[in-house]
Amino acid sequence: MTTATNADITDIAKLIAKLDIGMLTTKAPDGTLHGRPMSNNGDVEYDGDTWFFAEDGSRKVSEIETDPAVQLGFIASDAATWINVEGEATIVRDDVDRKRDFWSDDLARWFPNGPEDPTVVLIKVQARRIDAWAQDGAWQLDLRD
Amino acid sequence: MTTATNADITDIAKLIAKLDIGMLTTKAPDGTLHGRPMSNNGDVEYDGDTWFFAEDGSRKVSEIETDPAVQLGFIASDAATWINVEGEATIVRDDVDRKRDFWSDDLARWFPNGPEDPTVVLIKVQARRIDAWAQDGAWQLDLRD
Repeated sequence: MTTATNADITDIAKLIAKLDIGMLTTKAPDGTLHGRPMSNNGDVEYDGDTWFFAEDGSRKVSEIETDPAVQLGFIASDAATWINVEGEATIVRDDVDRKRDFWSDDLARWFPNGPEDPTVVLIKVQARRIDAWAQDGAWQLDLRD
Repeated sequence: MTTATNADITDIAKLIAKLDIGMLTTKAPDGTLHGRPMSNNGDVEYDGDTWFFAEDGSRKVSEIETDPAVQLGFIASDAATWINVEGEATIVRDDVDRKRDFWSDDLARWFPNGPEDPTVVLIKVQARRIDAWAQDGAWQLDLRD
């Protein structure tokens, strides 16, 4: 077994900057776990919060409103880097400025009406605990209060 | 939004054969979700069951024994392929023949005493529902009875 060493958020940020797509896993009301790929919008300055765009009323949004405990998995097998984020998610509505900030043109594929569309919401995932594995070691970071 | 089309298990098997490492997410007793990378042991003939080696008594083994609902995320961003498996996990002990079957030498890094070691167990994840996303479409497969 690899022994994990304590990391700080800048170590984790360096790893996450290399990874664009993560898997966001939520809990359904029947207890089953469901994941789907999500772009982290090229987050190159990770501070423990990850922001995703979502359609209001979608399955993931309602699951998060029922149970905010989520998991993010970032996998880059070619770079031998894997990151687990245990997080708490919240739905952020009516923050057009922030939506414009995080917007990138390739998101129009999923959200054709752009960031101003009120049915487009943000999912904020606040990391509580992070584990990272790479070729040269394993790290953990506890962000719980 | 991409509309998913129904897949059969051979379509999914072709995608999974390209992906070696997945993230196995389990539920902790406090409701938080925790994932870790796991090798699918080069499973080139996926039939809906995924087998992983684990250390008996480890966190994932005890979490599965408390709550068998798990999620597997396979991500190959370079191949633009992402797979979500909603599954039910069981711990298989005392099946040395199967452990020898699934054994590969690179596992010795984690399990130095080899497949005969009784503290090395198998985690069997039976898929209940699979979603797959790739460059040219999205698929789903319902395996619930």
